[in-house]
Amino acid sequence: MSPESLTDRQFRRVCDSYRVLIEKRLRALTDHREPGWVYEPVRYALSGGGKRIRSLLVLFSCEAAGGDPLRALNAAAAMEILHNFTLVHDDVMDNAELRRGKPTVHRRWSANAAILSGDELVALAYRAMLRSDSNRLPDILRVFTESFVEVCEGQALDKEFERRSAVSLAEYLRMIGKKTGRIIGASAEIGAIIGGARPAEAAALRSFGEHLGRAFQIRDDLLDVAGTVEEFGKEIGSDIREKKKTYLFVAALGRARGNDRAFLASIPRRKRITKGVIDRVRRIYGETGALERAARAVERSTASAQKSLGGVRRGKGKDLLLGLSRLLLDRAA
Amino acid sequence: MSPESLTDRQFRRVCDSYRVLIEKRLRALTDHREPGWVYEPVRYALSGGGKRIRSLLVLFSCEAAGGDPLRALNAAAAMEILHNFTLVHDDVMDNAELRRGKPTVHRRWSANAAILSGDELVALAYRAMLRSDSNRLPDILRVFTESFVEVCEGQALDKEFERRSAVSLAEYLRMIGKKTGRIIGASAEIGAIIGGARPAEAAALRSFGEHLGRAFQIRDDLLDVAGTVEEFGKEIGSDIREKKKTYLFVAALGRARGNDRAFLASIPRRKRITKGVIDRVRRIYGETGALERAARAVERSTASAQKSLGGVRRGKGKDLLLGLSRLLLDRAA
Repeated sequence: MSPESLTDRQFRRVCDSYRVLIEKRLRALTDHREPGWVYEPVRYALSGGGKRIRSLLVLFSCEAAGGDPLRALNAAAAMEILHNFTLVHDDVMDNAELRRGKPTVHRRWSANAAILSGDELVALAYRAMLRSDSNRLPDILRVFTESFVEVCEGQALDKEFERRSAVSLAEYLRMIGKKTGRIIGASAEIGAIIGGARPAEAAALRSFGEHLGRAFQIRDDLLDVAGTVEEFGKEIGSDIREKKKTYLFVAALGRARGNDRAFLASIPRRKRITKGVIDRVRRIYGETGALERAARAVERSTASAQKSLGGVRRGKGKDLLLGLSRLLLDRAA
Repeated sequence: MSPESLTDRQFRRVCDSYRVLIEKRLRALTDHREPGWVYEPVRYALSGGGKRIRSLLVLFSCEAAGGDPLRALNAAAAMEILHNFTLVHDDVMDNAELRRGKPTVHRRWSANAAILSGDELVALAYRAMLRSDSNRLPDILRVFTESFVEVCEGQALDKEFERRSAVSLAEYLRMIGKKTGRIIGASAEIGAIIGGARPAEAAALRSFGEHLGRAFQIRDDLLDVAGTVEEFGKEIGSDIREKKKTYLFVAALGRARGNDRAFLASIPRRKRITKGVIDRVRRIYGETGALERAARAVERSTASAQKSLGGVRRGKGKDLLLGLSRLLLDRAA
């Protein structure tokens, strides 16, 4: 298959076939394990669907570096498991009700079950990563662990920001770089290492992942106010309810004037965020142009991601990575 | 220093000098890090004192295998950090107020801060372990990760057992083997690997650790009802309040008859565990001989631990391990 010939339909077919392998590996790592008190929520969290972006990125990146993607399957599962750990614990901390259209783990079981199954997910992620077929395991585990350290730091910044009335764009970007970008960047870098990438190529692929992660997070911020429950799988406006400093909030606060500005700045101090509050915030996001600016930021970050691939050799792997970046711009994907 | 010459006082002096190094390494891994939202609770959890048994075991075991204990210092810190992660999360799940005589992390900050700082502790534990000076890092990380998987499983069993009226002695021993024994066993095994132990020697040291862990947990069960807040650092009777299936509960239920038996069996269904309930349970523990049986079980497990060292060469390292096992029998230690 020549690089130019990978149509959207062909890309989706490859994704589907890789996803079958990922799901199978995830089940193999968790099926039939006891005690159910912790493994039932673990299996529930991992079987909730999701697009498996991080796993696909590991496999595509391995392929782009010239490796057999099957060798990266355990690493792909590990990244997905680590990501799902963050979702389970973040949902407890944010008191979220829904995840991918289903009750969150702490709603379905308990906060305790969510805490412990999140912990077990981390342990299983390391177990999977340690099964990677590579003679560079210590390097792989260092990249993995540094992304784990930073995802916790990113979540801490996110929680810190909830209490603040203003957050600069630079602070916001630093926060999402840690909270979202690093795991996605690590997925690309680890795939590259397993695929035998030279250092410069591994760095390029990591950079691709980090830009992609930024695009992904800003898009997620947008979907929170512009999407529907069906396409988002979460409640609409939950970022506003949780007083999150999203791209939209930061951009709108920078542009809003008078009452609207004071209203936005008052959000962190409010006891209850009613539907009326959420509707007014959404209106301000529209009127200040924050929605358009966010959409443009997604496009810019996606373009930066694609540009990072400049030095990566052409071939199916690179084509798949470009396909993944296009997927991001498609809201329904 | 010949093996026979290591007096208790000399042993304690070695412990103190090693603890200075451990504390220093723990601080180096966590000082000056931001954001404070997560690192302040992290530093608080790690600076709460504790006897650093797991760290000492890593260093002694490395020495017993013929290695320089300083080479195992990062691994020693990693085991201590992993242990403290379990304490922070378990205290949330058990809604505990005190730990080592101070407010628990979730009491002092919030459940969210306790969840996230626990997660960050795991990440920091891996970061420390990955700095170990050894060409057998993948083996070390596998032992570490398997102990992490099992400590979560042990905690799940512990929570499952809270709802059950009866638990067999075999079930109890399996639970504490996972919850307490495996991390202590892994500490000894990892120290041995770093010290260059042959497989049989590493297995013997691991076995030493696992027996020691059992002794340690049963002793902890005893202190919960027989100690004072000052020597225990936790509330007295908290295991009873939390409906824990301790060695004492399992042993007492096996011996109690009539009303006392029905009373014990009713604990899991009770809404409130009053001081009166706790006092009656403690009385039953005395009358059924559960207290004496527990004390004998601690002695037996300690003897088994010491016996595991039969094949380990004599020297300062082995002597320190024997000293550690004696320390356990001294309640005030």
